[in-house]
Amino acid sequence: MNQDVIDILNAVKNRELSVEEALMQIKKEPFVDIGYAKVDLHRSVRQGVAEVIFGSGKTPEQICGIIATMLDHDQNSILITRLKQESAEIVSRNYNLEYYSEAQVGIVRDLKKTTDKSPGIGNIVVATGGTSDIPIAEEAALTAEFYGNNVIRLYDVGVAGLHRLLSHLDEIMSASVIITVAGMEGALASVIGGLVACPVIAVPTSVGYGASFSGLSALLSMLNSCSSGVSVVNIDNGFGAGYLANMINHMGK
Amino acid sequence: MNQDVIDILNAVKNRELSVEEALMQIKKEPFVDIGYAKVDLHRSVRQGVAEVIFGSGKTPEQICGIIATMLDHDQNSILITRLKQESAEIVSRNYNLEYYSEAQVGIVRDLKKTTDKSPGIGNIVVATGGTSDIPIAEEAALTAEFYGNNVIRLYDVGVAGLHRLLSHLDEIMSASVIITVAGMEGALASVIGGLVACPVIAVPTSVGYGASFSGLSALLSMLNSCSSGVSVVNIDNGFGAGYLANMINHMGK
Amino acid sequence: MNQDVIDILNAVKNRELSVEEALMQIKKEPFVDIGYAKVDLHRSVRQGVAEVIFGSGKTPEQICGIIATMLDHDQNSILITRLKQESAEIVSRNYNLEYYSEAQVGIVRDLKKTTDKSPGIGNIVVATGGTSDIPIAEEAALTAEFYGNNVIRLYDVGVAGLHRLLSHLDEIMSASVIITVAGMEGALASVIGGLVACPVIAVPTSVGYGASFSGLSALLSMLNSCSSGVSVVNIDNGFGAGYLANMINHMGK
Amino acid sequence: MNQDVIDILNAVKNRELSVEEALMQIKKEPFVDIGYAKVDLHRSVRQGVAEVIFGSGKTPEQICGIIATMLDHDQNSILITRLKQESAEIVSRNYNLEYYSEAQVGIVRDLKKTTDKSPGIGNIVVATGGTSDIPIAEEAALTAEFYGNNVIRLYDVGVAGLHRLLSHLDEIMSASVIITVAGMEGALASVIGGLVACPVIAVPTSVGYGASFSGLSALLSMLNSCSSGVSVVNIDNGFGAGYLANMINHMGK
Amino acid sequence: MNQDVIDILNAVKNRELSVEEALMQIKKEPFVDIGYAKVDLHRSVRQGVAEVIFGSGKTPEQICGIIATMLDHDQNSILITRLKQESAEIVSRNYNLEYYSEAQVGIVRDLKKTTDKSPGIGNIVVATGGTSDIPIAEEAALTAEFYGNNVIRLYDVGVAGLHRLLSHLDEIMSASVIITVAGMEGALASVIGGLVACPVIAVPTSVGYGASFSGLSALLSMLNSCSSGVSVVNIDNGFGAGYLANMINHMGK
Amino acid sequence: MNQDVIDILNAVKNRELSVEEALMQIKKEPFVDIGYAKVDLHRSVRQGVAEVIFGSGKTPEQICGIIATMLDHDQNSILITRLKQESAEIVSRNYNLEYYSEAQVGIVRDLKKTTDKSPGIGNIVVATGGTSDIPIAEEAALTAEFYGNNVIRLYDVGVAGLHRLLSHLDEIMSASVIITVAGMEGALASVIGGLVACPVIAVPTSVGYGASFSGLSALLSMLNSCSSGVSVVNIDNGFGAGYLANMINHMGK
Amino acid sequence: MNQDVIDILNAVKNRELSVEEALMQIKKEPFVDIGYAKVDLHRSVRQGVAEVIFGSGKTPEQICGIIATMLDHDQNSILITRLKQESAEIVSRNYNLEYYSEAQVGIVRDLKKTTDKSPGIGNIVVATGGTSDIPIAEEAALTAEFYGNNVIRLYDVGVAGLHRLLSHLDEIMSASVIITVAGMEGALASVIGGLVACPVIAVPTSVGYGASFSGLSALLSMLNSCSSGVSVVNIDNGFGAGYLANMINHMGK
Amino acid sequence: MNQDVIDILNAVKNRELSVEEALMQIKKEPFVDIGYAKVDLHRSVRQGVAEVIFGSGKTPEQICGIIATMLDHDQNSILITRLKQESAEIVSRNYNLEYYSEAQVGIVRDLKKTTDKSPGIGNIVVATGGTSDIPIAEEAALTAEFYGNNVIRLYDVGVAGLHRLLSHLDEIMSASVIITVAGMEGALASVIGGLVACPVIAVPTSVGYGASFSGLSALLSMLNSCSSGVSVVNIDNGFGAGYLANMINHMGK
Repeated sequence: MNQDVIDILNAVKNRELSVEEALMQIKKEPFVDIGYAKVDLHRSVRQGVAEVIFGSGKTPEQICGIIATMLDHDQNSILITRLKQESAEIVSRNYNLEYYSEAQVGIVRDLKKTTDKSPGIGNIVVATGGTSDIPIAEEAALTAEFYGNNVIRLYDVGVAGLHRLLSHLDEIMSASVIITVAGMEGALASVIGGLVACPVIAVPTSVGYGASFSGLSALLSMLNSCSSGVSVVNIDNGFGAGYLANMINHMGK
Repeated sequence: MNQDVIDILNAVKNRELSVEEALMQIKKEPFVDIGYAKVDLHRSVRQGVAEVIFGSGKTPEQICGIIATMLDHDQNSILITRLKQESAEIVSRNYNLEYYSEAQVGIVRDLKKTTDKSPGIGNIVVATGGTSDIPIAEEAALTAEFYGNNVIRLYDVGVAGLHRLLSHLDEIMSASVIITVAGMEGALASVIGGLVACPVIAVPTSVGYGASFSGLSALLSMLNSCSSGVSVVNIDNGFGAGYLANMINHMGK
Repeated sequence: MNQDVIDILNAVKNRELSVEEALMQIKKEPFVDIGYAKVDLHRSVRQGVAEVIFGSGKTPEQICGIIATMLDHDQNSILITRLKQESAEIVSRNYNLEYYSEAQVGIVRDLKKTTDKSPGIGNIVVATGGTSDIPIAEEAALTAEFYGNNVIRLYDVGVAGLHRLLSHLDEIMSASVIITVAGMEGALASVIGGLVACPVIAVPTSVGYGASFSGLSALLSMLNSCSSGVSVVNIDNGFGAGYLANMINHMGK
Repeated sequence: MNQDVIDILNAVKNRELSVEEALMQIKKEPFVDIGYAKVDLHRSVRQGVAEVIFGSGKTPEQICGIIATMLDHDQNSILITRLKQESAEIVSRNYNLEYYSEAQVGIVRDLKKTTDKSPGIGNIVVATGGTSDIPIAEEAALTAEFYGNNVIRLYDVGVAGLHRLLSHLDEIMSASVIITVAGMEGALASVIGGLVACPVIAVPTSVGYGASFSGLSALLSMLNSCSSGVSVVNIDNGFGAGYLANMINHMGK
Repeated sequence: MNQDVIDILNAVKNRELSVEEALMQIKKEPFVDIGYAKVDLHRSVRQGVAEVIFGSGKTPEQICGIIATMLDHDQNSILITRLKQESAEIVSRNYNLEYYSEAQVGIVRDLKKTTDKSPGIGNIVVATGGTSDIPIAEEAALTAEFYGNNVIRLYDVGVAGLHRLLSHLDEIMSASVIITVAGMEGALASVIGGLVACPVIAVPTSVGYGASFSGLSALLSMLNSCSSGVSVVNIDNGFGAGYLANMINHMGK
Repeated sequence: MNQDVIDILNAVKNRELSVEEALMQIKKEPFVDIGYAKVDLHRSVRQGVAEVIFGSGKTPEQICGIIATMLDHDQNSILITRLKQESAEIVSRNYNLEYYSEAQVGIVRDLKKTTDKSPGIGNIVVATGGTSDIPIAEEAALTAEFYGNNVIRLYDVGVAGLHRLLSHLDEIMSASVIITVAGMEGALASVIGGLVACPVIAVPTSVGYGASFSGLSALLSMLNSCSSGVSVVNIDNGFGAGYLANMINHMGK
Repeated sequence: MNQDVIDILNAVKNRELSVEEALMQIKKEPFVDIGYAKVDLHRSVRQGVAEVIFGSGKTPEQICGIIATMLDHDQNSILITRLKQESAEIVSRNYNLEYYSEAQVGIVRDLKKTTDKSPGIGNIVVATGGTSDIPIAEEAALTAEFYGNNVIRLYDVGVAGLHRLLSHLDEIMSASVIITVAGMEGALASVIGGLVACPVIAVPTSVGYGASFSGLSALLSMLNSCSSGVSVVNIDNGFGAGYLANMINHMGK
Repeated sequence: MNQDVIDILNAVKNRELSVEEALMQIKKEPFVDIGYAKVDLHRSVRQGVAEVIFGSGKTPEQICGIIATMLDHDQNSILITRLKQESAEIVSRNYNLEYYSEAQVGIVRDLKKTTDKSPGIGNIVVATGGTSDIPIAEEAALTAEFYGNNVIRLYDVGVAGLHRLLSHLDEIMSASVIITVAGMEGALASVIGGLVACPVIAVPTSVGYGASFSGLSALLSMLNSCSSGVSVVNIDNGFGAGYLANMINHMGK
């Protein structure tokens, strides 16, 4: 934004822009106001990657409206998270949608445009404690893949059966970033964090019952991890973990 | 107690006891009322083992009074937990006291009496996640030893450095009962619980800071353990774990 | 696992196994990866007892897949917890299933194989505070019976009517292990814990309303029990209590 | 207050009082404003009993000022709760003070005045779970005695040793009101509540450690009591329990 | 129960009872075991009043079974709380049921038996903060009426419109016991507690939204009441309040 | 009310009113008791503005009854919040109702009466963090407009895209009062509070998932705002914010 | 800030400012960076009133440094909150400091400059529930006075003795803004909010014990107030309330 | 570790190692057991960087012992966090210690060894919301510098004065990784996260009072950040953030 201000100021100086026009430019972009949403085109412009719609709490019509705005502004692919089956069906009538029902993730691609996305530094491993954590893990994995990364899935490798985890030491120890997805006691993040030298992103899930308190137990466990290099995102926030893993896996690129 | 009622009823039937005396007997024993405490002699009589004083919140004078009452009633050794240094010094002026300052545990022995205590089925392993958990672990270990058990200490084997734990697989896998003592994320209980086929008693500790919330994180983590055979006692309750481990290690004896 | 490593190393030494094969062996077993789950055959091999499926959050198809894998690997009976009626019907089309609807427990038996299961040291008593706690208590009782134990059920003996509990002193005082299942104020664990000399496993339930906060009240109450020998499992975790009771009742066997 | 309004209105009607004077009367009494406090004389007038000062957070000087105001307004005895040793010493220099240090309760009596207080319907039993609950229990007991009631103290009768409690069935079952004071798991209220047909006032205490969370465990436990006739006051609120017990024990008098 | 033991012991002494019979008697009564419940006839015998069924979590068949057992044992009327419409319809096919749908309360009366119930010392006032608190208030009021008390209902007199409350000063100040039922900020208990000289039973309700946290706000508010004479029951526990109010209103009778 | 008392007292003095009548007058007004509600006409009388019905937990019939009472007492328009679609349809059969379904707000106007409402000092800005916060924001905005204020809506201007907010600096900095409506991390209140010199009313919403804990995160965030001039209302309390904003925007009028 | 940008852009257009200089200007003001703090002069410039230092967690030297910076930038008086006695003594050696020890508030005035501060629309009433709330109330009152407002103090008027509050109806009903300061059950805000037609700012305090949970009870109570026009600030945030009250009392000025 | 196993297996195959020796090797390294701690040399060997001692809860003697062990095993510099002044003095008598008292960080360097540490991809920005967050920020900054990174400190740039933050847009937008350290409402992480395209590590601090609940408010706020690319570490965990930032800033190196 700083550079933009400099550009605009230079344009004013060179009389290419009136003061009023300059002020308007600073204010107007980089988003489009479509009434119920201000579609943020900022990241897209800045980072050259596709944009994301958080589908939860939006009507199919609102989602279609936002897609239309994005495609009009040169997005070539759009990731939609928390997209329910019913909404997906409506969206797919109008757009070229891939839908992953378990993860509630949809991807709209403009087939006329192509993107070469860099795979980044290395592999991103997505590991889950149990079978029930897979939907959140898939949200993370699909997000990371959407941005071009190679993803290795290690599902149901919870610490209650340590040999399942240890049998994948190769994949774990050669990863560039690891996303650990676990509910219940959430110990997976600590155990993996203690084995590797790469960043570990911990995603607590609301999987569990009783004293799991909808993910609170896993959340606290992960925040208190004794292993260095572990950080935590919100309960069930698979997208956030996948997005951050992508960022880290593209460091220096 | 049921058997007692039968005995007393028989005595009444046989006119060895009046109804009033019978009623008094049912009421009076098995404890001694010394004003500020009702010294419980029940367990001692029933189980043939020494009794315990929870030292916290009692004055040295009160503790000495309870010791005196116990020794008068044929206790031959007494375990005192949460015994502060200052109290220990006063107690040791009057009684033969062994004092373990780190664990705040004292043991009074009547040297004129001897006890042959059974070591039980096998070894009790006491494992801690870190160095700071040792005081609670020692409370557990000393309690288990007080009741005759062999205790193996594995300290600072937290899951953030899994190789430290795995290097002790021999001791862990041959244990009869395992006590895991851990603060922070409390993952140790789950990992050990997943490795062994014996009961695991988990002791969350108040060690940690921030989102450990004085042991809440470890407590929830342990309650949510995916490993079967794990049960939990109160935060920092080393005595409770040691006592239960002794019970389990003497099953069928 | 340690012994396995020794065996494998010996095989390498004797040139019966190449280094690469040895490494593969350490990694591969003892679980089978069927995509959505890594079926753990470890315990089964080690302990000679049947394995368990946690039915919650799994589709009937996934459950059937896991059953098939287990039966293929010499399991002779399988316990399925949190098995909903609808799933039970689908499972029973393919397998010989006993279904206990109140407890949501199913047992698949391979009738061609037989198992002699030891009844253990003594009886396991399962006691509940009220009528509403019975489903969780049955999960515990059926689990304990599945592993061969004799179970005595004492239901609706909550402390608000102490005479109901005291009328069963015989069963309580002669038990080998006691499982107390209670919601609301959860006082049953403490009262029973104070009466007996055997281990007491406390299961808080989510039964209650208002300030029971879905089992939190009973959970805290049980963790704070003044009675020695009491430990606690997760809210509504009947299986965990039954499994642990079995372990303890088979100590030294 | 209603009756007062009628009296004042009648006085206005009879021209014994001007409208302005009437309004002033409604406003002015029944308290005295001494700057840092508005000394409430209302209860005293209405109920004919002595008044109470909550000593916590007040300086000795403020306490003395409030005592002076009360004695000036025909109080003949004053109960001061949460009165620290240091403050008690200063108060006793100026007034005839009985001080109970364990309970932090002080009583100022104007010896020139006498009160005949009714002992009420029956006895008030004050029972504690353990020795550490005694200070709060004494606050309750002294409060009840201050208002004329006969109090029976049953200390250290917690449910972990049920025989201690059952040996006092006589006192418990003949009580008019029972105050149960307990920390940790707070089960005493439920057990006693289930045994008796009189009101039970439960006082959770902050005694305990770990998951007692400063009295929260006992508080929840007592609120969830399955026993009818149990109600709860704030954690450590011995005074509130004693005051309410007195009210109940004087019903219909 | 104490007196029972004396009687039984005397019978043993007089050889009217064998020891074994005596033991059986102590154990057997005063409840009836009907499998899914141990119907408590203890209170009924002792207090001469009707018994109560907590309908929540019981099937209509279980409720009918308990009613049948009670009527067989000389109950003449039965109060059923938390009785859903559907269950009420099934019960009413078999028994003479009055059903109050708003309060989810049912009363079964055996018309062949009559009871003269004492109205007690004075009136019981039931006051609510708002309209939404009425169902819980009615549970309390119907319970109190069931036991013979006169009940005065003051609904929607919350402190946000103090004049509504003050207009009922007459009823409030002449009450024998007051039950205050309020959700949201729960201030009603404190305000009424400050106006009267009789016991106030506070019932927090789960009415509210947001930071009311299902009644937690009202619960804490009531526990912290600065007014003396206020005690608290569980959130939404109208029955408990009505039952306790009855106890207090019959003190000394 | 004070003035009323004076008037009544004067009337008594002048024998225009008997004492009994005076007492009745003090008690009766200013509300109307219609059984299930005490319709508060106090504010209306005092402030000359329309009254409000909180629709949640009231039947359509109760709502219609309250509307009728209000219209009978000279209300000319009535605001109904939390009015569900089904209820709105029933109300609109009897009254002239405008219904805003997203905000669940209805307004009944008596077209025969007119009101000139002052627009107040300046504009009220209502800003939301995201699209999902709009329903609560609309409740606030419609409330403020109902009382005559000019409202500027700035929706979806959350701090994660600061440029969206900064592009509206004009509206924000010229506002008279600002209402910020946000869930999740609730940072909007602090950021806006730091930019402006007018009062900011923060409305946390229950929008979010995981560790938003139904609005707790936003609530705490807003309470801890480092920006001066920010105060907070209950989670999802759009009406409360709109009402208070109106009060502030009419200060000194 | 918007206007500033226009001015700067115009200067660039007129070549009075280089682009680089313009960028620097946008960035630099209006604060001064003194290493450990960025002294905010923004409000002062904009609002023409004195600035505030939050003394907690700052050394006396840091506080003096900030005072010096402020006085250098034309502040004529400075309010310091949470200023401990020790720090106050050091500050007063260098500056003309008025210190209010109960409230821990200090005011530094530059006697060479004078300010005419408007008293605003009307009076600000500051009311407390009890004596212990006075320090926080004084922080609020002194803050409001610092900005020129007339403050009326009504201390110890909690709802447990409603007549104390009602005797001040005159002051309460004629206030422009009311600040209610209360711990424990925090009911004062609701009661006052229901009596008046002006904004009420509620300050929960940490006064209390047991289930007050350091102010949580009062906080929740105030957030759930049924009275319209009530908003809440952080626990113990007297300054925030005083500052906001001043803002509101100067609306339209 | 995998590679180690292959090496050892190859050695066994080549008869260079007996099976027993091989097993011992797998177990023994890579840590040294010094009684009270198992010094972890694993990371050091693997990552070629210095190791860390968590000083909290360790005696100066224990710390010195661990330092000695590390230096004996080829560590050339050691970072000690949470090192109190008193301990630092004792350590500095024996070792070459740099001590940073505000951050409670110490660094021991073996001057005979040198390390060339890579500065990584770019700059790490450490930003704080206020002055009181600086100690935690310094722990993060010193940790990052210890591992060779360039650190830019932006202190006291909280969102309540947004211009302070915006004046540093250059540094913020050119950072490689950003660590945001904030207590109270913790909004800084969201605002910065919305401005940049690099990973943001959020450190909630326990700075604040009242409803900040010792960092809980900031923690929840940060977990709920709407900005992508934000992850969170434990409250006050400056070290964890610095360590992770270093990892990320060295990705691909």
